[in-house]
Amino acid sequence: MIRKINSKTNTRIKHAASLKEKKYREEFHEFLIEGDKVLKMALEAKMVKEIFTISPLLDVSDDIIQYVISRELLVKITNTKSPQGVAAICSIPNYSFKDEYKKVVYLDDIADPGNLGTIIRTALSFGYDAIIASENTVDFFNPKVVASSKGSIFFIPVLAGKIVDFKEKYQIIVSSLNDKSIPLEEAKTKIKDRMVLVIGNEANGVKEETASLADLLVKIPMVKMDSLNAAVASGILMYTLK
Amino acid sequence: MIRKINSKTNTRIKHAASLKEKKYREEFHEFLIEGDKVLKMALEAKMVKEIFTISPLLDVSDDIIQYVISRELLVKITNTKSPQGVAAICSIPNYSFKDEYKKVVYLDDIADPGNLGTIIRTALSFGYDAIIASENTVDFFNPKVVASSKGSIFFIPVLAGKIVDFKEKYQIIVSSLNDKSIPLEEAKTKIKDRMVLVIGNEANGVKEETASLADLLVKIPMVKMDSLNAAVASGILMYTLK
Repeated sequence: MIRKINSKTNTRIKHAASLKEKKYREEFHEFLIEGDKVLKMALEAKMVKEIFTISPLLDVSDDIIQYVISRELLVKITNTKSPQGVAAICSIPNYSFKDEYKKVVYLDDIADPGNLGTIIRTALSFGYDAIIASENTVDFFNPKVVASSKGSIFFIPVLAGKIVDFKEKYQIIVSSLNDKSIPLEEAKTKIKDRMVLVIGNEANGVKEETASLADLLVKIPMVKMDSLNAAVASGILMYTLK
Repeated sequence: MIRKINSKTNTRIKHAASLKEKKYREEFHEFLIEGDKVLKMALEAKMVKEIFTISPLLDVSDDIIQYVISRELLVKITNTKSPQGVAAICSIPNYSFKDEYKKVVYLDDIADPGNLGTIIRTALSFGYDAIIASENTVDFFNPKVVASSKGSIFFIPVLAGKIVDFKEKYQIIVSSLNDKSIPLEEAKTKIKDRMVLVIGNEANGVKEETASLADLLVKIPMVKMDSLNAAVASGILMYTLK
């Protein structure tokens, strides 16, 4: 179904624009995506509710409403000055944790949306079963997270959770530059069937209360600097321990 | 030495602001840095020529001139809306390639400044000897590259170069999802003493003419998506093949 919207004050436009804010995403269980590649993946995952586009899209089921709008209106609802020609409202999926999950990534207060999106992308590529975020981790459905996840967020369960709830049934692996940490290659030989890989905050690392639950402390050996970008460090950990 | 500048049209302010553009960086062999952490590293590397700061810094040698300026002027010379309180002009180092370099990263048209900076940071952390960039790779001294390198650019030689010039003396390792590529863990056992790790463009991968020079084609095995962020993929390759 295709409809035209001309007015800035149209309720659908205002609603779409409101989804930049977390409180509205939580209220409506919806989030906004941008660009044709991400839209294609969202359609594949059957998560698209409404499309806002500069020109009607041909390969979209007639059940999904397409609002044809001006570039000016598209700029209003997205976060980018020069958006690609399309945006869409998606429903936030209602994941619940499954006991069958074996390899899980736990994010202990990741703050940067670009890092979070990149971590989601990496976790999916290496076949992790789910991503769990601490309360203070940046919102999974922040537009910058969704953008840097390159659509991978539609294909891996992402949930809020507490690390302590994994202690009984999972091996908890914490990345830390702590003296007691063992090098990653050695850690690789000690991985159990069910594990949670914990990734800490970009500036402060893993919280003490989280680290105290660790069954295995690991570090990535470095020659100089002892400094890696958080998404890169996470990628090396996820690749090696997968 | 400390001086105060009040005027927007002051030549030092105009000069500093001009370094946002590559042509001026090339003309003057200078680039601009921002923030106290990066400045600290630049001072350690003895690459700082002039400092622009909101309040005078105490732990800086008197040989380096400090211009005390308003926040408004600092915004003018930097790329950020809300800059940290300090910026500086640094000299672009004149590296030349050394035959003793054993492990080198070659960038085949990396386009994103954030990715380039992150790759520099990773290469330094894992002890690579130098980074060589193809002609179409984004400028090493682009402010966004310098920022995302977190100061590591001061401690690893970065040079322009052609991959063909390495063919005779180095093993050329190309990351590619090509059918002939061998998995990374297998490639690890085949690394020679002198090697160049080639990393391709974010969207298009490694150029055909570059891939044709490869002694070893490697791929990172993935379960789903076959999609990793370029800086993450580079990080996994650099870590594994270091």
